[in-house]
Amino acid sequence: MGKDLAISMTATTSNEATASTVNLGPAAGLASKESGARIPLAPEFVSPDDFSPLEVVYDFGNVRREDIEAGPRSIWRYKQLLPVPPNVADYPNTEPGCTRLIKADRLAAELGVRKLWIKDDTGNPTHSFKDRVVAVALAAAREFGFKVLACPSTGNLANATAAAAARAGWESVVLIPSSLERAKVLTTAVYDGALIAVDGNYDDVNRLATELAAEHEDWAFVNVNVRPYYSEGSKTLGFEVAEQLGWRLPEQIVVPIASGSQLTKVDKGFQEFGQLGLVEPTPYRVFGAQATGCSPVSAAFRSGHDVVQPVKPDTIARSLAIGAPADGPYVLDTVRRTGGAIEDVTDAEVVEGIRLLARTEGVFAETAGGVTMACAKKLLETGKLDPDAETVLLITGDGLKTLDAVADQVGPRATVPPSAAAVHEALERGRG
Amino acid sequence: MGKDLAISMTATTSNEATASTVNLGPAAGLASKESGARIPLAPEFVSPDDFSPLEVVYDFGNVRREDIEAGPRSIWRYKQLLPVPPNVADYPNTEPGCTRLIKADRLAAELGVRKLWIKDDTGNPTHSFKDRVVAVALAAAREFGFKVLACPSTGNLANATAAAAARAGWESVVLIPSSLERAKVLTTAVYDGALIAVDGNYDDVNRLATELAAEHEDWAFVNVNVRPYYSEGSKTLGFEVAEQLGWRLPEQIVVPIASGSQLTKVDKGFQEFGQLGLVEPTPYRVFGAQATGCSPVSAAFRSGHDVVQPVKPDTIARSLAIGAPADGPYVLDTVRRTGGAIEDVTDAEVVEGIRLLARTEGVFAETAGGVTMACAKKLLETGKLDPDAETVLLITGDGLKTLDAVADQVGPRATVPPSAAAVHEALERGRG
Repeated sequence: MGKDLAISMTATTSNEATASTVNLGPAAGLASKESGARIPLAPEFVSPDDFSPLEVVYDFGNVRREDIEAGPRSIWRYKQLLPVPPNVADYPNTEPGCTRLIKADRLAAELGVRKLWIKDDTGNPTHSFKDRVVAVALAAAREFGFKVLACPSTGNLANATAAAAARAGWESVVLIPSSLERAKVLTTAVYDGALIAVDGNYDDVNRLATELAAEHEDWAFVNVNVRPYYSEGSKTLGFEVAEQLGWRLPEQIVVPIASGSQLTKVDKGFQEFGQLGLVEPTPYRVFGAQATGCSPVSAAFRSGHDVVQPVKPDTIARSLAIGAPADGPYVLDTVRRTGGAIEDVTDAEVVEGIRLLARTEGVFAETAGGVTMACAKKLLETGKLDPDAETVLLITGDGLKTLDAVADQVGPRATVPPSAAAVHEALERGRG
Repeated sequence: MGKDLAISMTATTSNEATASTVNLGPAAGLASKESGARIPLAPEFVSPDDFSPLEVVYDFGNVRREDIEAGPRSIWRYKQLLPVPPNVADYPNTEPGCTRLIKADRLAAELGVRKLWIKDDTGNPTHSFKDRVVAVALAAAREFGFKVLACPSTGNLANATAAAAARAGWESVVLIPSSLERAKVLTTAVYDGALIAVDGNYDDVNRLATELAAEHEDWAFVNVNVRPYYSEGSKTLGFEVAEQLGWRLPEQIVVPIASGSQLTKVDKGFQEFGQLGLVEPTPYRVFGAQATGCSPVSAAFRSGHDVVQPVKPDTIARSLAIGAPADGPYVLDTVRRTGGAIEDVTDAEVVEGIRLLARTEGVFAETAGGVTMACAKKLLETGKLDPDAETVLLITGDGLKTLDAVADQVGPRATVPPSAAAVHEALERGRG
């Protein structure tokens, strides 16, 4: 990891946009996540002070509910809380966000939970939460003078990056593991950017991206050299949940863990809303969900470790299959600080989770959603999730992208000739 | 057709809910689309007066922009204009609608159009406009005392019906042609209702559904016995376009034609907004789009006929493959009255349309969207669409559901080992 970080620090833009020329709204600078040492806004992701990750720091000023409510029906309603220019909505972008938060009474009844909500992010333009983070990354990259949008991806990010670049009229370079699901490959390729399949797993592809980011001054790798901006996009999931609950925080939230960034940013979103007086800063607990076949953060949590030991992923939940999760330690911090827990589930449980959510609430999640669903169930069964506390499950990607996970489990009850009698017979058989 | 209609007229609900007990908000009754003869609200779709289709008639009262704007971010913001009870949003439903309307400047530039918008209905819960009509059908069916939600479908409706039933806790019976795309089959089956594949085309399945609707008193076939309510859901596409344009009507709109219902209801939505003073009743032209392999309405338009001659469909645009479109004659009326036109395009043009839209605007449409896109292009080339008039294209379904259409046309540029040099070489080859 040290080598990759050292290389990446040499990356600057060809345009040499600096803190004095860029306008990223409330964003005031970048700070080391460890020491807090600040540098000006720049396309950097590693602190020169201590080589730890950089995070955006803000001067928020006064942010009012009315201003947010009067904003567009997209993540740009929260632009006063994001590292984006005030005119961000004027540039062509995919306009993600404002996805539905549905009250899941049938699922709640089945699980024995008092009050349960599903935040269904499959309604985004390319049907995952990645549209949020990419939109913020693109806005920041534009300010820094980049010309190419790039990423290494397990799939959803590839879709989002290629679509956002197409809409903005940017070139894109997208790197994916060659083993990726067909749906995610085609749904990236159709946008006609440069899609390159790499023989290796996601961690291999990620290392390659870090190397390329250092070599190409005008490529904004959304989750590498502009990662501090990109990752702030996940705060909008927390913002929306709170606004949709009527400007208040839930008591428990279950979030899937890939790099771990999303979980920490949902927490950050809740905190910022509380600090700004947009909601009462009521206590909440953050829970993490992993697939057992790639559960380094869950394993560290269980063992009481602060360090996450990388693993070689082997799970159908490929969008969570990051064996060396960059934000793993921060996930552990967040979960422990809030009194949550981290769980992991087998691939069979993932498929059961997908089917349970579909059957009870009509929401068809991808494998990552099956992980969240199944982990929530397990956390309830083991008494870690409180069934009496209001709970939100984050469903961050779409079942249409991972059809193979359910393909041998579901299908028509029967194939019949076009006659009413044949239909009746098939229905009777189904009941029998 | 006459036989089917006669049978269907015997269908009533077991609960015998009547006009005096049902509350469908502003809906005041049903009227023959031909004679205007009225009957009370009931689960009927054929006029006893003249055997023509029934349509909902309303007593709207005063409807104000402020009330709509203060409503939920779903089609229920328009509940004062739909045949649904005032408390419709209190029942579990998929909460469809409020999908994005994006300004398509890059596509406009490529087509030589002054002002172009894409209404992207792929953001709906099951990623097509069918969530809108099913939600309205379910609300009406509940009032009439039905217990089972059913449909014959070319796919998108199957997805929407099965999901809506799951979320509401209703049983579902969904009939599909056995040749349906894998994605649409799995995305229906996962909701765990009774999915029956029928050996036949959509028109065979539709006839079968009409027969079953007559036999099963407690089955609400969304697009058969509760069709008058169901079809009103498509008005919300028109409502949203007008609201999202800032409470005004576009000058031109291009709508795909399957049964033809959607096109006529978008027109009805525009008209109602004008009549109620919600928008200036400015003139607009409605254009229809079909695939050449199933173009009975386009053929009738071209020939100047009032009657639509049924065809046997043969096109990759299966969600539009209705050979005997129920609302064909009304589509002809609407298009001729507004000064529009109807066009059809080959399957190759459909795929080109999908790719054009994806490449320029980052929107991945299913084959039906490719039909709309390609027909718009052809209508511009033949001078039927005015390039100087503000135009909206309706994209009503998702590319993830019809991947096979593009599978042999798009893909990674290269598959390479995990080295920067290999990526560079692949990108150079791509440029060469």
